[in-house]
Amino acid sequence: MMKSYEDHGFFKLDTHREKRQGFPEIIYGEGKTSEQIIEIVRVMIEKNQRTLVTRVSEEKGKVIKEALPETSYNEIARTICWLNPNEERFLYNGYTNVVSAGTSDLPIAMEAATTLEVMGCRVELITDVGVAGIHRLFDKLPKIRSGLVTVVVAGMEGALPSVIGGLVSHPIIAVPTSVGYGTNFNGLAALLSMLNACSSGISVVNIDNGFGAGYNAALIHKLAQGEKVKLLS
Amino acid sequence: MMKSYEDHGFFKLDTHREKRQGFPEIIYGEGKTSEQIIEIVRVMIEKNQRTLVTRVSEEKGKVIKEALPETSYNEIARTICWLNPNEERFLYNGYTNVVSAGTSDLPIAMEAATTLEVMGCRVELITDVGVAGIHRLFDKLPKIRSGLVTVVVAGMEGALPSVIGGLVSHPIIAVPTSVGYGTNFNGLAALLSMLNACSSGISVVNIDNGFGAGYNAALIHKLAQGEKVKLLS
Amino acid sequence: MMKSYEDHGFFKLDTHREKRQGFPEIIYGEGKTSEQIIEIVRVMIEKNQRTLVTRVSEEKGKVIKEALPETSYNEIARTICWLNPNEERFLYNGYTNVVSAGTSDLPIAMEAATTLEVMGCRVELITDVGVAGIHRLFDKLPKIRSGLVTVVVAGMEGALPSVIGGLVSHPIIAVPTSVGYGTNFNGLAALLSMLNACSSGISVVNIDNGFGAGYNAALIHKLAQGEKVKLLS
Amino acid sequence: MMKSYEDHGFFKLDTHREKRQGFPEIIYGEGKTSEQIIEIVRVMIEKNQRTLVTRVSEEKGKVIKEALPETSYNEIARTICWLNPNEERFLYNGYTNVVSAGTSDLPIAMEAATTLEVMGCRVELITDVGVAGIHRLFDKLPKIRSGLVTVVVAGMEGALPSVIGGLVSHPIIAVPTSVGYGTNFNGLAALLSMLNACSSGISVVNIDNGFGAGYNAALIHKLAQGEKVKLLS
Amino acid sequence: MMKSYEDHGFFKLDTHREKRQGFPEIIYGEGKTSEQIIEIVRVMIEKNQRTLVTRVSEEKGKVIKEALPETSYNEIARTICWLNPNEERFLYNGYTNVVSAGTSDLPIAMEAATTLEVMGCRVELITDVGVAGIHRLFDKLPKIRSGLVTVVVAGMEGALPSVIGGLVSHPIIAVPTSVGYGTNFNGLAALLSMLNACSSGISVVNIDNGFGAGYNAALIHKLAQGEKVKLLS
Amino acid sequence: MMKSYEDHGFFKLDTHREKRQGFPEIIYGEGKTSEQIIEIVRVMIEKNQRTLVTRVSEEKGKVIKEALPETSYNEIARTICWLNPNEERFLYNGYTNVVSAGTSDLPIAMEAATTLEVMGCRVELITDVGVAGIHRLFDKLPKIRSGLVTVVVAGMEGALPSVIGGLVSHPIIAVPTSVGYGTNFNGLAALLSMLNACSSGISVVNIDNGFGAGYNAALIHKLAQGEKVKLLS
Amino acid sequence: MMKSYEDHGFFKLDTHREKRQGFPEIIYGEGKTSEQIIEIVRVMIEKNQRTLVTRVSEEKGKVIKEALPETSYNEIARTICWLNPNEERFLYNGYTNVVSAGTSDLPIAMEAATTLEVMGCRVELITDVGVAGIHRLFDKLPKIRSGLVTVVVAGMEGALPSVIGGLVSHPIIAVPTSVGYGTNFNGLAALLSMLNACSSGISVVNIDNGFGAGYNAALIHKLAQGEKVKLLS
Amino acid sequence: MMKSYEDHGFFKLDTHREKRQGFPEIIYGEGKTSEQIIEIVRVMIEKNQRTLVTRVSEEKGKVIKEALPETSYNEIARTICWLNPNEERFLYNGYTNVVSAGTSDLPIAMEAATTLEVMGCRVELITDVGVAGIHRLFDKLPKIRSGLVTVVVAGMEGALPSVIGGLVSHPIIAVPTSVGYGTNFNGLAALLSMLNACSSGISVVNIDNGFGAGYNAALIHKLAQGEKVKLLS
Repeated sequence: MMKSYEDHGFFKLDTHREKRQGFPEIIYGEGKTSEQIIEIVRVMIEKNQRTLVTRVSEEKGKVIKEALPETSYNEIARTICWLNPNEERFLYNGYTNVVSAGTSDLPIAMEAATTLEVMGCRVELITDVGVAGIHRLFDKLPKIRSGLVTVVVAGMEGALPSVIGGLVSHPIIAVPTSVGYGTNFNGLAALLSMLNACSSGISVVNIDNGFGAGYNAALIHKLAQGEKVKLLS
Repeated sequence: MMKSYEDHGFFKLDTHREKRQGFPEIIYGEGKTSEQIIEIVRVMIEKNQRTLVTRVSEEKGKVIKEALPETSYNEIARTICWLNPNEERFLYNGYTNVVSAGTSDLPIAMEAATTLEVMGCRVELITDVGVAGIHRLFDKLPKIRSGLVTVVVAGMEGALPSVIGGLVSHPIIAVPTSVGYGTNFNGLAALLSMLNACSSGISVVNIDNGFGAGYNAALIHKLAQGEKVKLLS
Repeated sequence: MMKSYEDHGFFKLDTHREKRQGFPEIIYGEGKTSEQIIEIVRVMIEKNQRTLVTRVSEEKGKVIKEALPETSYNEIARTICWLNPNEERFLYNGYTNVVSAGTSDLPIAMEAATTLEVMGCRVELITDVGVAGIHRLFDKLPKIRSGLVTVVVAGMEGALPSVIGGLVSHPIIAVPTSVGYGTNFNGLAALLSMLNACSSGISVVNIDNGFGAGYNAALIHKLAQGEKVKLLS
Repeated sequence: MMKSYEDHGFFKLDTHREKRQGFPEIIYGEGKTSEQIIEIVRVMIEKNQRTLVTRVSEEKGKVIKEALPETSYNEIARTICWLNPNEERFLYNGYTNVVSAGTSDLPIAMEAATTLEVMGCRVELITDVGVAGIHRLFDKLPKIRSGLVTVVVAGMEGALPSVIGGLVSHPIIAVPTSVGYGTNFNGLAALLSMLNACSSGISVVNIDNGFGAGYNAALIHKLAQGEKVKLLS
Repeated sequence: MMKSYEDHGFFKLDTHREKRQGFPEIIYGEGKTSEQIIEIVRVMIEKNQRTLVTRVSEEKGKVIKEALPETSYNEIARTICWLNPNEERFLYNGYTNVVSAGTSDLPIAMEAATTLEVMGCRVELITDVGVAGIHRLFDKLPKIRSGLVTVVVAGMEGALPSVIGGLVSHPIIAVPTSVGYGTNFNGLAALLSMLNACSSGISVVNIDNGFGAGYNAALIHKLAQGEKVKLLS
Repeated sequence: MMKSYEDHGFFKLDTHREKRQGFPEIIYGEGKTSEQIIEIVRVMIEKNQRTLVTRVSEEKGKVIKEALPETSYNEIARTICWLNPNEERFLYNGYTNVVSAGTSDLPIAMEAATTLEVMGCRVELITDVGVAGIHRLFDKLPKIRSGLVTVVVAGMEGALPSVIGGLVSHPIIAVPTSVGYGTNFNGLAALLSMLNACSSGISVVNIDNGFGAGYNAALIHKLAQGEKVKLLS
Repeated sequence: MMKSYEDHGFFKLDTHREKRQGFPEIIYGEGKTSEQIIEIVRVMIEKNQRTLVTRVSEEKGKVIKEALPETSYNEIARTICWLNPNEERFLYNGYTNVVSAGTSDLPIAMEAATTLEVMGCRVELITDVGVAGIHRLFDKLPKIRSGLVTVVVAGMEGALPSVIGGLVSHPIIAVPTSVGYGTNFNGLAALLSMLNACSSGISVVNIDNGFGAGYNAALIHKLAQGEKVKLLS
Repeated sequence: MMKSYEDHGFFKLDTHREKRQGFPEIIYGEGKTSEQIIEIVRVMIEKNQRTLVTRVSEEKGKVIKEALPETSYNEIARTICWLNPNEERFLYNGYTNVVSAGTSDLPIAMEAATTLEVMGCRVELITDVGVAGIHRLFDKLPKIRSGLVTVVVAGMEGALPSVIGGLVSHPIIAVPTSVGYGTNFNGLAALLSMLNACSSGISVVNIDNGFGAGYNAALIHKLAQGEKVKLLS
């Protein structure tokens, strides 16, 4: 039996994963040194794999970018990406919406958007449409309704998914953020709101988990575009 | 010095309260027997005081109503009221909105509405306008905007005050209800939403405290209609 | 403008909803009397709408079934359904998996499965494959992998979605149940597990929210089968 | 239709808001750079709008003050304000009380007071009257009773609103602060106290939300002085 | 060595306890059958020991009273007591105050008072002096100040100990009760208030632990009256 | 009427307090600058009042000590004290025990001990007698039993008060500390332990509140030594 | 490949389990009907397997006992057991201690003891040795020290494992019980105590999980008596 | 009687402990200075005792290593060890597994492994086998099954112990780590998962308590290898 992962000393690269799950491993940057990230990314680029590293601080980002100039660092999303320049950037038709409530929610929204793009999905990014100024949201509604899936990112009271959920007919992935203070309890208020949303069609990921929401949305986006389900033979 | 309360055995009637706070004591029915409530209400009627008893179960309500047929029992709000039939029902101009999100929130909304009416304020009751069907809310917006104050009653994710808060220019009293299940935690989800509302002009009362919201709204309603502030001489 | 809902006295039927969201309103049975449910269901049957009422106790179920013998009551899922006998039962190809960990999780799994079926999706129900006997799960893996979406229902420590999430390449909707005792805190342990799942592709709904999970899965199932996104004109 | 907001690149200025809600947008300074704040404030001054920026650190405050010497920075309240020197400072008669329990609660009390003043309301600031030395409070009672509304700011056990609530006949907005340690849980103890206050007429805002309390109080203050309710035509 | 306890089958009577701790064992009635309580009390009466059983339901109380007519059952405090009729009822001079905020707090206050009396201390019971009507408290202040210790019993926001704590110079034992609803969280709000009291000289016992407060107060009362500290030889 | 406090600009000195509560105000140092503390202490020394400032960081302590060399700074307890050198150091007979479980609990134990001493009570400090090595505790038992009151300071699981409570016949004031990690939740584990102690005679103060425990113990110590209760005339 | 479980309609019997884990499946009785339990137990008896059903209410116990008179029902432990009368009752030398703090903890202690016995281990049951009367514990210490493992069952503040942990040199399995009230929070106080125990050698199971503790202890007991580790071939 | 501990000024060395508990005291490094640690370790080396200091920061580690070059510092486990070079390193046959889920859990796994080794037990360290890539775990299963005990270290959702628990027949000590974010709540999610594990044979220690898990495992390892239980004579 072929081995399903390669051992690279401090990390094991799950080479089987793309077969098993349809997408190579995403690297969680927090708690890894720039040197470790550089080494992992180098191996992935050599294998021609679409590469995404999340939670990369600005400081680390600079070091990595310098060592691997072919990668790109997004300082709002705090991600390092690499896409094969000879490959199609977008793999599927249609688009996924990433909608955020306040300006402070932008980093998480960008993390979701970047994840979607690395996974080959077009993204429509719609920001600053929190429920306190609901007319802004209505301006964007036709755009949102034409998307395949919608990621909704909101902190504070996290009411936005409930409102959008009542207005669209496609799945919504809600991301609570830790934006707020006091009884926000670092995103708990928004999380509970989203889990208790009175609209149907909403599911929720962990607080500040922009990557998770983007990944989920990309799986749905692929399904919606006729992607065949790959089985592990 | 005149005594500021009368001792009626098992209860002390705060006769000074109307002077000190502008409204006679409201009776909290939970934990009191029908007999105790009847005795208290009888004393208040004798003194010609507007009377409100909250949290009166249907069973107790019947007993009281039988003993004191001049009172009225509202089985949704679970309140016993008595207003002097020779006195004006409404003491102030304008009206306060009581808006509720779902049908299950109705009892709390009714408790708020009844409280306002006993305190002499007209109420506009608007129900079943939760954010999942936001077009229903928009139908009612002109009505809501013309009110002096708005009490917003919502369970589940409690998003309604945030949305209304962004659309009106008067004070909002938000009441979280314990309607919901699982991570609703008996109203905690709605409470946190309301405390973290991104709209301004919203303040919050305890879970299921329809009476408290109505009382607050009535104080503001009175102020808005030129009520002179009474000082305790 | 045409009115977007009909007022039937104690309830407003959102007639626009199917247009706006692609599926008629689901009725939440808890807190409604049998009489109210019967009246609502009757109106929906008259309009030839696929009908689902959730959280219907056995006692209420009997009364409703007697009044409306054309409906069916599922006593495990605690649902009342009605499908037009002249209409195709299943509207889409493929199937969604509903996987449950323990026997006590079955009611919630059944609620999810019933929701999917009422929405026209085929369901593969796989029960009793908790992680404590992981060989049972592996027996079912080929089946699970060929599905379009997987709903995973688990109480206690809620570990099942993490394990399945590492083995399939399609979206997973995880439902924590309140099955457990002590530090389970009525499903909180399972909920936190699922929100913190180390596998990607998992999103979560409220504790015991089988309906919500089924609804989400059905939206994805439809997308995966080429359902056109309907816009509200 | 006229557009209801102007897009200034990184921020959208809600120009419609004054019409819709009777007061221009307040700027939440946390998470914004001095440069961003300066740019926003400049636009608002150009439009002759009363301007308030909250949660501005001393460091940022200095930079902003230097760039815009016509603004004033309050280092206790941590606010930047600008009022048109050719306009009346106070727009309404009467005054609102801002009462604080301990010296450490002063910053939040000052944030409330500043908000009220920017919104055109006179403020009576009464500090250091916590319930542990209740005679200090009684000295101030006549003053408090003559106000239109009272904002009460308290940390630790948050008992002050309950006591004042039993002594006045006008609305009270209670603000829990995060002052305390141990089981204070960053203001949770005070918040719960205030939500459970046994006196009537008290509503509550988020922990440390001095701005929110001031804003609420100002809305009531305006109503009390005959402010006409503006409708969005 | 003499054995320090007697084995009576299903219970061990700690006969050494009076020597070691100055007072015989108090019986916690919850979870014991009437028969078990009767047997224990009979043994204690035979030994001429002051006897107190707490948390005895009305139903059990009747059965016990019938079997042991020399005991007395207090249906508010839910206690069974027996004092030797040939012994002095009160063993010490002075009195301890037991002060309660609302009528619903009375059972817990009575449990504290009964405990004190069984331990030989005179009690001054002062009820219904919650902070919402603070003038009632001030009427009783001279009485309270002349006591040796004060037990303060309060539910809801639990503010009363803070206020009394600022007005007296002796120790205060605060008892939070589970009286309240919503965010009261079964007494948590009152408990946190009391632990965070801004007045000095307050210590706290478990929610609804009237017995514990009475026991503590009695130990202090005894010390204050020159009780010699007994050492276990 | 004589004024009951002096206004010293940024602070009000409660000159009446000694009369009303038997001991001058203790200064809570956290959140005050060295300059503010120096000014307050200077006033108190001028008035010949026993002076205690708690929660004074080492850095501030040095500055204050330099400005006021007659004061003493205890770097473990983090307190500034001043006692009149011409006055008796100890005002009462007997002693209070301050017992701590682990070495990390020492600062809180020292804060309690210092408070007692400033209030004129002798202290027996017994450290490092946690329940994991219970023989150490038994060595000290005769000493502990001869005290008038015992303050027990413990972090982690906070079991020490329960054990001591079963072995002595005088009142115990338990102080939970925030020493621990993980599920200790900054002292919550110890607090809950102490509130649920199965021994009688234990009351509890806030987490890390060494001062509060010392103050309570001193009040009891005074009572035990025949201190007359002073009434406010 | 041989199938590793048998399908008996509503339950799957894990026949492989004894091979894989060294002990047949234990049946969790809660949520199963008497009929279901009878059917399962009948199959296990036919296979000559040691049988244990936990959480069997008294009512169900009677029905089962009547149907299967060869089983025994323990009404304190609430368990149904069956041991092959032709097989040795005890399979290993030595004994495990099951120690409980209060009389109310007895049911959980008995559940642990019964589990151990069904798994072939001798048990020494030591009850009513809570830390409030620590001399009772010391009487039993030699007995406890000679055991192989100790299960410690305690509610309220859960201090007993810490004390025993400091006195023995073998592993301790601590079981928090839900015995207590108020801040006990249904066993949370005891759980946190045990997780934060300052003694080493203590591990913890879920609240009220007597079975889990017994099972763990039995695994260790077997190891200590030279049980060979069985591998799944 | 011989004294059971030596007093070394700031620390008491429990010399009796090895007799009483079978292993010398482990030093908890957090909150101790390098100098204090050096002094303690020196005494222990002089007494020829196996020495372990946990929670030693890298900075302190260097200072200690320099002062006592015969010790070894493990920078991942953050421990200082000393073993007598003339003594056997391993005292028992067989091995204990230490299994960790993710790379970030390694420090806690290493702390457990180091503790086991200092106590004389061989360790098999198996890392990076989280449930998201369950095939990695199955590769290691034969190794794991042949161990005597297994320590399982996992953060995030903490599902690994449940899965391993269903596959082995020996005791499992589960260690939740604080690895994760958002609703992980610093390890609470993993802790609750482990306490609610549906597999039997799992007990749990405090969050991040690698030492505690190693210590427990070592006690069992010793028992499994025929270690006689030592009684304190």
